[in-house]
Amino acid sequence: MTSIDLNCDLGEGFGPWQMGNDAAMIELATSVNIACGFHAGDADIMHQTVKLAKARGVAVGAHPGFRDLHGFGRRPVPGITAAEIENLVAYQIGALQAVAALAGHKVSHVKAHGALSNVACEDDMTARAIAAAIKAVDPKLVFVVLASSKLQTAGEAAGLTLAHEVFADRAYEDDATLVSRKKPGAVLHDPIEIAERVLRMVQDGAVLSVTGKLIKLRTDTVCIHGDTAGAVEIARGLRARLAQAGITVAPFARG
Amino acid sequence: MTSIDLNCDLGEGFGPWQMGNDAAMIELATSVNIACGFHAGDADIMHQTVKLAKARGVAVGAHPGFRDLHGFGRRPVPGITAAEIENLVAYQIGALQAVAALAGHKVSHVKAHGALSNVACEDDMTARAIAAAIKAVDPKLVFVVLASSKLQTAGEAAGLTLAHEVFADRAYEDDATLVSRKKPGAVLHDPIEIAERVLRMVQDGAVLSVTGKLIKLRTDTVCIHGDTAGAVEIARGLRARLAQAGITVAPFARG
Amino acid sequence: MTSIDLNCDLGEGFGPWQMGNDAAMIELATSVNIACGFHAGDADIMHQTVKLAKARGVAVGAHPGFRDLHGFGRRPVPGITAAEIENLVAYQIGALQAVAALAGHKVSHVKAHGALSNVACEDDMTARAIAAAIKAVDPKLVFVVLASSKLQTAGEAAGLTLAHEVFADRAYEDDATLVSRKKPGAVLHDPIEIAERVLRMVQDGAVLSVTGKLIKLRTDTVCIHGDTAGAVEIARGLRARLAQAGITVAPFARG
Amino acid sequence: MTSIDLNCDLGEGFGPWQMGNDAAMIELATSVNIACGFHAGDADIMHQTVKLAKARGVAVGAHPGFRDLHGFGRRPVPGITAAEIENLVAYQIGALQAVAALAGHKVSHVKAHGALSNVACEDDMTARAIAAAIKAVDPKLVFVVLASSKLQTAGEAAGLTLAHEVFADRAYEDDATLVSRKKPGAVLHDPIEIAERVLRMVQDGAVLSVTGKLIKLRTDTVCIHGDTAGAVEIARGLRARLAQAGITVAPFARG
Repeated sequence: MTSIDLNCDLGEGFGPWQMGNDAAMIELATSVNIACGFHAGDADIMHQTVKLAKARGVAVGAHPGFRDLHGFGRRPVPGITAAEIENLVAYQIGALQAVAALAGHKVSHVKAHGALSNVACEDDMTARAIAAAIKAVDPKLVFVVLASSKLQTAGEAAGLTLAHEVFADRAYEDDATLVSRKKPGAVLHDPIEIAERVLRMVQDGAVLSVTGKLIKLRTDTVCIHGDTAGAVEIARGLRARLAQAGITVAPFARG
Repeated sequence: MTSIDLNCDLGEGFGPWQMGNDAAMIELATSVNIACGFHAGDADIMHQTVKLAKARGVAVGAHPGFRDLHGFGRRPVPGITAAEIENLVAYQIGALQAVAALAGHKVSHVKAHGALSNVACEDDMTARAIAAAIKAVDPKLVFVVLASSKLQTAGEAAGLTLAHEVFADRAYEDDATLVSRKKPGAVLHDPIEIAERVLRMVQDGAVLSVTGKLIKLRTDTVCIHGDTAGAVEIARGLRARLAQAGITVAPFARG
Repeated sequence: MTSIDLNCDLGEGFGPWQMGNDAAMIELATSVNIACGFHAGDADIMHQTVKLAKARGVAVGAHPGFRDLHGFGRRPVPGITAAEIENLVAYQIGALQAVAALAGHKVSHVKAHGALSNVACEDDMTARAIAAAIKAVDPKLVFVVLASSKLQTAGEAAGLTLAHEVFADRAYEDDATLVSRKKPGAVLHDPIEIAERVLRMVQDGAVLSVTGKLIKLRTDTVCIHGDTAGAVEIARGLRARLAQAGITVAPFARG
Repeated sequence: MTSIDLNCDLGEGFGPWQMGNDAAMIELATSVNIACGFHAGDADIMHQTVKLAKARGVAVGAHPGFRDLHGFGRRPVPGITAAEIENLVAYQIGALQAVAALAGHKVSHVKAHGALSNVACEDDMTARAIAAAIKAVDPKLVFVVLASSKLQTAGEAAGLTLAHEVFADRAYEDDATLVSRKKPGAVLHDPIEIAERVLRMVQDGAVLSVTGKLIKLRTDTVCIHGDTAGAVEIARGLRARLAQAGITVAPFARG
C-alpha cells in the first residue's frame, strides 16, 4: 500500500460557539467528518466547513449523532428504535449532501459519532440501522467502520463499501478491538511511537496488541484528533513520518 | 386545463406533539409540503408523513422554515443573511430528500413556510436565496410560488420550474396579490363560493378581484388547509365541485 | 380522614403545540403539576396554567423532568450525575416560582416527571438529588412521592414534608409498589371499581393487593390523568363518589 | 464616591461549549451577569459560575435574553408581546435564584442581555415588561440600566432600585446615550485613556462627550468585557488605576 487516509472530526461548533482547532486540522487531514446539527454543527458551520474542505481538496463525510446538543451526542438514548435511528441518520446525511451541493462539493463517506457509534459497535440492531440508512440514501457512500465491530458486520451485510478505521493513539486487544479507556495503557502519548505504529499498520496491515502479539488490522483510514495541542503535534509527526517513508496521504473515498 | 393540484402543509407535529388533521388532509391533497425540523417536524414524523404520501400516490415537497421551533417559524429573523438562508433551505431540502429515499419516495417540490415565505414574497434577497438553494440542491425541483411575488421573480431568474399557487379562501387585489388579512373580506368562508371561485381559476385562469375586476391568475396548485373543521369541509367541497366539472386532481410535479 | 387531594399533570404543550385537555382536568384536580420547559411547557404556557389554577383555587407544583423536549422526558439520561440532577431540578422549580409570582400565585409542591421520577423511584442517588434540590430552593415545598419508593426514603432523610401519592387506576403488589405495566391487570379500567378502591384508600388507608392482601397505603393525593376521554370519565366518577361519601377534595399543600 | 462596581457577563457557554475567559474575568469583576439558558448557559454552567462568584465574594445577577440559543440572543423577536417578555424574564430570574440557592449564594441584580436590552433601551413596552417581571419576582433586585434609556425610565416608574451602568470603552453623545457602533470613534481602545475616563466618571460623575462637552453621567457600575485579550488588559489597567486613585471596587448590590 502506498496511500493512506487521515480522517478528523470537524465543524463541531454551534451558533456562536466554536470547538476544536478546525483551521489546524484541515491542514493535516485528507478526509473530514462533519457534524450535521444533531449533537453539534448547524447549516452555516456545515457550509463553511465543506467550503474549507473543498478549497483544500479534502473529502467530506457526514458525522451523524444522536439528537443531543446539550450532551454533544455522548449519551446513549435508551429505548430508541431501529426505525428512529434510520430516520435520524438519513436526515443528517441528506442535510449535509444538500449543503455540500451548495458549496460545490460532494459527500463521500459516513462515520457515526459518539454514543451512536459506541452503541453501534456492540449492538447489531443499531449498526444495521445505520447501514440501512446509508444504503437507502446513497449506496455509493463509503461507510467508515471500526475493525471487528458490529459496524463492520452490518456494513458488509448491507453490501456497502467499507473504510476500516484505526486509531493512531490507542492500544489494541488480541481480537483487534480497542483496549477500553478504563484500562491502563489504553491511550498512547509518545508522537514517535505513535507514528512508527501507524507506519506499520499501513505498510504491514498489522499492529502489536497489548499482549505483544502481531495481529492483522486492515487500515484504510487513520483517525486523528484536534482537541488538544498534543494531538495536533501527534498528527503532524505522523504526516511527517509517513512522508519520509514514501506513503502518500489521500482520501480513501477517491480510490 | 383538465387537471389541477391541491397542496397542503403536513407533518407539523414535533416529538410527542401533533398538529392538524394529517389523516383527513392526505385524503384531499395531491401534493403535501412537509415540515423539515426547523419550525416543526422531526425525522420520524417526516418519515411517517412521506410513507403516508407514498401509499396514497401523493407528491411530497420540502416546506423549509426559519429555525424557530417555539414560534413555529412565524417570526421573521432580523438580520439573517442571504447565505444563511441558502444554508438553512438547502439543509432542510436535503434532509427530506434522504428521509424520502428511506421511505422509497422522492421529493418533487419546495414551498417556503411561514415567515420565510412572507418575507421572501416582498424581499428580493430572501427570495433569491431560496431559489439559489433549490437550484444548487436539485434544479429539477419544482418551486411553488405566489403569483406576482418576489418568489416568482426569483424563481424565474434562477430558471426553476415554477408552480403558481392560488389560495382558495383568500381575496385578491387588482395586481394579483393577496388582500392583507388585516383588511375586511380578506378571507372567504362560504364553501360553495370558494369552490366556484377555484373552478373559475382553474378553467379560466382568472379571478374576480376585490374591486370586481377579472384578473389573470396562473393556477398550477391550490393551497388547502386542515387547521379547522371548516377547512376540511371547504377542501371536500372543492374536490367534489372539481370532480363534477370534470377537472382531474393530480400532483403538478408529475407532468 | 375527611379530605383528599387529586393531582394532575398540566401545561404539557410547547410553543404552538397543545397536549391533553387542561380545561377539563383543571375542573377535577385540586393540585396541578406544571411542566417547566425541559420536557414540555414554556414560560407562556406555565404562566397561563398558573393563572388558570389560581382562578380556580387549585394548588400548583413544579413538575421537573430531564432536558428532553423531543422525547417528552420519558427516556433516562445515562451517566447523568447527582449534581446535574440537582441543578436541573432547582432550575425548573425556580423558574416556576418566578412565573407563579408574576401570576400572583405560589408554588406549593414538587413532583418529578417521567423518566426522572421512574429512575428516582429505584435509584437512591437520583432520589436524593431531587430532594436536595427541593430543600435548597425552599424546604417548605411539599415533595410528592410514591409510597415505598426511593423518593419516599430520600424525602424523609432530607426532612421534607411528603405527600404520598396513590394511583387510582393501578394495581399494587404486596409491598405497596405498583404492579409493572408489563404484567396483566396492572391497569384498572372500570370507573366504579376505581372509585370504590380510592374511597377505601382514603377512608381506610389501605388497598387490596393483586394477591388479595389488604395492605397499608398512606394516601395524601390521588394521581388522575387527562390523556384519554376514559380518564376524564374516571376522574369525574371518582369525584362524585368521594362527594357522596362525604370526603372533601382539597389541596394537600394547604393543610 | 469612594467605591465602584465592575460588572461582567459570565457563564455564556452551553453544554460542551465554552465562551470567553470566565476564569480571568471573575478576578476583575465585582458583579457578574449570568446567562440563564435562553441565549446561553445551562443549569450546570449557571451553578458552576455562581459557585465561582461566591468563592470570590462576587455578586451575581440574572442576565436574561430572548429564547435564541443559535443566535445568542442578539436578534430581536418581531411581534413578541409584553406578556411574553414578562414571562421569559421572570422564568430566567427564578431559574437563577434557585440554582444560586443550591450554591449557597443569592441573586442581587438583573441586567438584560443582547437584543432584549437593545430593544428595551428604545422601546417603552419592552422596558416596562422587564421591570414588571423583576418587581413581581423580587422587588429588592437591583435593575442595571443604561443612563437615559427607556430601561431607566421603566425602572424608575416601577420603583425599582437602579444601578446606572457606564461603558468603559464607549464614546457618549451629548444626551448621555452611547455613540452608535456604526459611527467612527464609537469604541475606545487605549487602556490608559479608558482608565482615566472611567476614573473621571467615578470621581466626577461626568464624561466628555464626542463633541467635547462635559456631561453628567451617574455611574454605579462599569461594564467590562472579557471577549478579547485586549479587553482583559483594559479591565486590569482600569482596576490598577482605580486602586491607585484610592477608589474601592465592590458590588453595588451590597450597599
